[in-house]
Amino acid sequence: MKIPLAQIAELLGAELQGDPQKVIRGVAPFESAGPYDITVAASAKFVKRIAQTNAGAVIVPRKVGELEQNLLPVEHPMVAFVHVAQQFHPPPEPVARIHSQAAVGQDVKFGESVDIGPCAVVGDRVRIGNRVVIGPGAVLGDDTVIGDEVHLHPNVTILARCRVGSRVVVHSGTVIGSDGFGFAPDGKRYHKQPHTGIVIIGDDVEIGANNTIDRATFGETRIGNGVKTDNLVHIAHNVRIGDNSVIVSQVGISGSVTVGDNVTLAGQAGVAGHLNIGDNAIVGPRAGIAKDVPPGQVMMGAPEMPHKLWLRVQRIIPLLPELKKRLDDLEKRLAQLTPDKGE
Amino acid sequence: MKIPLAQIAELLGAELQGDPQKVIRGVAPFESAGPYDITVAASAKFVKRIAQTNAGAVIVPRKVGELEQNLLPVEHPMVAFVHVAQQFHPPPEPVARIHSQAAVGQDVKFGESVDIGPCAVVGDRVRIGNRVVIGPGAVLGDDTVIGDEVHLHPNVTILARCRVGSRVVVHSGTVIGSDGFGFAPDGKRYHKQPHTGIVIIGDDVEIGANNTIDRATFGETRIGNGVKTDNLVHIAHNVRIGDNSVIVSQVGISGSVTVGDNVTLAGQAGVAGHLNIGDNAIVGPRAGIAKDVPPGQVMMGAPEMPHKLWLRVQRIIPLLPELKKRLDDLEKRLAQLTPDKGE
Amino acid sequence: MKIPLAQIAELLGAELQGDPQKVIRGVAPFESAGPYDITVAASAKFVKRIAQTNAGAVIVPRKVGELEQNLLPVEHPMVAFVHVAQQFHPPPEPVARIHSQAAVGQDVKFGESVDIGPCAVVGDRVRIGNRVVIGPGAVLGDDTVIGDEVHLHPNVTILARCRVGSRVVVHSGTVIGSDGFGFAPDGKRYHKQPHTGIVIIGDDVEIGANNTIDRATFGETRIGNGVKTDNLVHIAHNVRIGDNSVIVSQVGISGSVTVGDNVTLAGQAGVAGHLNIGDNAIVGPRAGIAKDVPPGQVMMGAPEMPHKLWLRVQRIIPLLPELKKRLDDLEKRLAQLTPDKGE
Repeated sequence: MKIPLAQIAELLGAELQGDPQKVIRGVAPFESAGPYDITVAASAKFVKRIAQTNAGAVIVPRKVGELEQNLLPVEHPMVAFVHVAQQFHPPPEPVARIHSQAAVGQDVKFGESVDIGPCAVVGDRVRIGNRVVIGPGAVLGDDTVIGDEVHLHPNVTILARCRVGSRVVVHSGTVIGSDGFGFAPDGKRYHKQPHTGIVIIGDDVEIGANNTIDRATFGETRIGNGVKTDNLVHIAHNVRIGDNSVIVSQVGISGSVTVGDNVTLAGQAGVAGHLNIGDNAIVGPRAGIAKDVPPGQVMMGAPEMPHKLWLRVQRIIPLLPELKKRLDDLEKRLAQLTPDKGE
Repeated sequence: MKIPLAQIAELLGAELQGDPQKVIRGVAPFESAGPYDITVAASAKFVKRIAQTNAGAVIVPRKVGELEQNLLPVEHPMVAFVHVAQQFHPPPEPVARIHSQAAVGQDVKFGESVDIGPCAVVGDRVRIGNRVVIGPGAVLGDDTVIGDEVHLHPNVTILARCRVGSRVVVHSGTVIGSDGFGFAPDGKRYHKQPHTGIVIIGDDVEIGANNTIDRATFGETRIGNGVKTDNLVHIAHNVRIGDNSVIVSQVGISGSVTVGDNVTLAGQAGVAGHLNIGDNAIVGPRAGIAKDVPPGQVMMGAPEMPHKLWLRVQRIIPLLPELKKRLDDLEKRLAQLTPDKGE
Repeated sequence: MKIPLAQIAELLGAELQGDPQKVIRGVAPFESAGPYDITVAASAKFVKRIAQTNAGAVIVPRKVGELEQNLLPVEHPMVAFVHVAQQFHPPPEPVARIHSQAAVGQDVKFGESVDIGPCAVVGDRVRIGNRVVIGPGAVLGDDTVIGDEVHLHPNVTILARCRVGSRVVVHSGTVIGSDGFGFAPDGKRYHKQPHTGIVIIGDDVEIGANNTIDRATFGETRIGNGVKTDNLVHIAHNVRIGDNSVIVSQVGISGSVTVGDNVTLAGQAGVAGHLNIGDNAIVGPRAGIAKDVPPGQVMMGAPEMPHKLWLRVQRIIPLLPELKKRLDDLEKRLAQLTPDKGE
């Protein structure tokens, strides 16, 4: 694929500094970009080094001075770079195909250009939108509903009655709609709560590999529009995640938690049951959240603390042996000052 | 489905306060229950609000005073509610079917009413009990043994020679019988220990989605009767888990650990190798257990501590910067008192 | 299988103390070994108890005194034991078979003795070496490359263009080549970075169950030769892992991290993005690594600390309530000494 810079500038709405006829053949990282690649210098660190790159063009933040390189100044350089990368690497256009070794149930409704891979299984009464790819080995339970332009990668499992929006990607090994962990104890053993609810996944969502998203006990577990999850994430029954929130790898979210919009939960964090994580909050890596997080707060650690306090605490913890010695020493010195009061 | 209250009262062994002819059509949560639903008020919080519910009937703890609502007093309200929910949502009765796109090996023995889904794979010499569902894409290795009334959800993998009891549910993506992590180092590289053992799963067990339960090096990894695991749980080789223990999401149990009966391991906890967790012990969320836990103990945190101590430690950790300042200050004041002793 | 001790001694290059004609029929743990089993006493604890074992022969460290038992002294007893175990339990020899219910794409090249299980799916232009087992339900994406003597267990997913070396084992449920977690934010929503890179797995690698190994944004995510991973491990895009490193269960490694050779990452540890973990470093269980780890260092905890410091900190944390009381007390006593200075 070859795209002239003028066309890329138009795509990005950028005012090109350089040669509009210059032809670009691909995208590449800053370090390895060659004369036919476009790259990006999003941060000051890379902007300083633009003169050294061999790249055919560089996407830069607004207001970079004159240079010999072909430059495309934009407000969000990484977003612009991603848009160009998407031009060079469009997702393959699905072709209408039901592989002879796929298994399709009764009363299934397909949109246009649905590709069902070998050994994929589609249950009864499933509804699938347009331009959908169901990868090899993926399983769609009875009565599931899948929107348009969805890509379910190989060996994904979506269980009965769950609903997936449009422009959703689900990576391999992920399970959507498993029963929640709900058992009533009688003091000796546990009795299983039937899980009659479902999972609803919004539009423009991407779910990583080997996630588990449990169906609600009653009603719905809800993943909002634009949510992105990394790998090995656990989302329990009746959780609600707002729009455009980001959940990094190995996070665990307990039952009935509400996560707001634009929240970030960093890797390996855990959230206890029934809590609220407010809009725009950030939960730090490996944090253990045991109480509500107000909107906009940055909470770190376990026990969780505001970010600034946490930074100070982190610095003191390795000093504890020294602090203990100083305390011991103070006691001795004070005992010497007040010998009659010594124990 | 319609069930008169008299029949529900009989099922629960409860003395109905209200109209025995009242017909119930479903179960629902306290907040949203309508006039044909039965709900539950298990805790004082909900009992106080019974007068406000629209539910057709409410399951309550023993000894709730007279009210207009239809009431079913029982000792374990949540257990009773679950039993009623199970009446309204019985698991589908399996029908005898081997899907034409399933693959079944040689010398397989089936009980009655075994349902093998499309693209499920059953190895050679497998023995399967009565009323078993093997979901689409599930794989049973050679010589596996499956009891009665077992439900293996789609894309479950049970590897060669492992044994599963009766009334067991395994959720999607779970792997039972993978090789344990056993390698002998020679100082340069690692040599793989063949894993000749198996996994044995007891009766009435439920295993969550995307668990991994490794086979023993020799002998058996054992999951006791009535055990329930949540999602993304890791159970290493030669682990033994007693009866009716509960393992919450993302817990990791290292090799050769013994977990007693009625133990709870809360979410994201980890247990180091070869330890004993005594009967009725509770391990808190995200705890890192590095030594044995005596029976009945509640251990929290990392390093692990008894619950009461841990609560106090948790309150102090955010105070560390302040405590350090107070220590600095004390030293200065003491130095002023004893100037000739200053360093 | 029956092997005389003389033959085992020859295999191990050991000078047998005992009866070369003695026939061994299997391997067993120290506690349960019978008269036809060979076992191992690797540590002093077991060496002391050799006189009590019923084992037919015992592999021991060099320089164990004369005993009645048949002894095989070697430098690395566990490695020797594993080698003998491998003799008694060789992996099954694959037979050339493409199961009629497997799905194989176009232009696939197979080596000798390739066994493709039922419901396995092999994409187009895949290249597979000699003596390879592709388990039931496993999926190989288009253009993947698989070396010799590879065993992919059931329901493994290897996505397009990824490459696997020789003598590699991948356990069930693992996903290799899922897209990395790369999205560019514009302040409102996230834009997906196309992931055009791949994953390259070296030779003699074993990957546990339900791992996720993401493909690189550009270029390669690389797993070195001899690497062993346990279950539920997450390896993000563009990570590089050196040779013979060991990654224990539930570890998470963030994007662009470089892990050296012979590194150990213990269970549930996490490594933040773009860090370097030097050769021969050890990262402790549940450690949260937020800065580079120099070669050979042993880092524990979160915040991470050198091992010796961490041990001391671990002992002090449960004493914090007591230390705080002592500080309170000191302040009172000092205030009594200097009453005019009291606040």
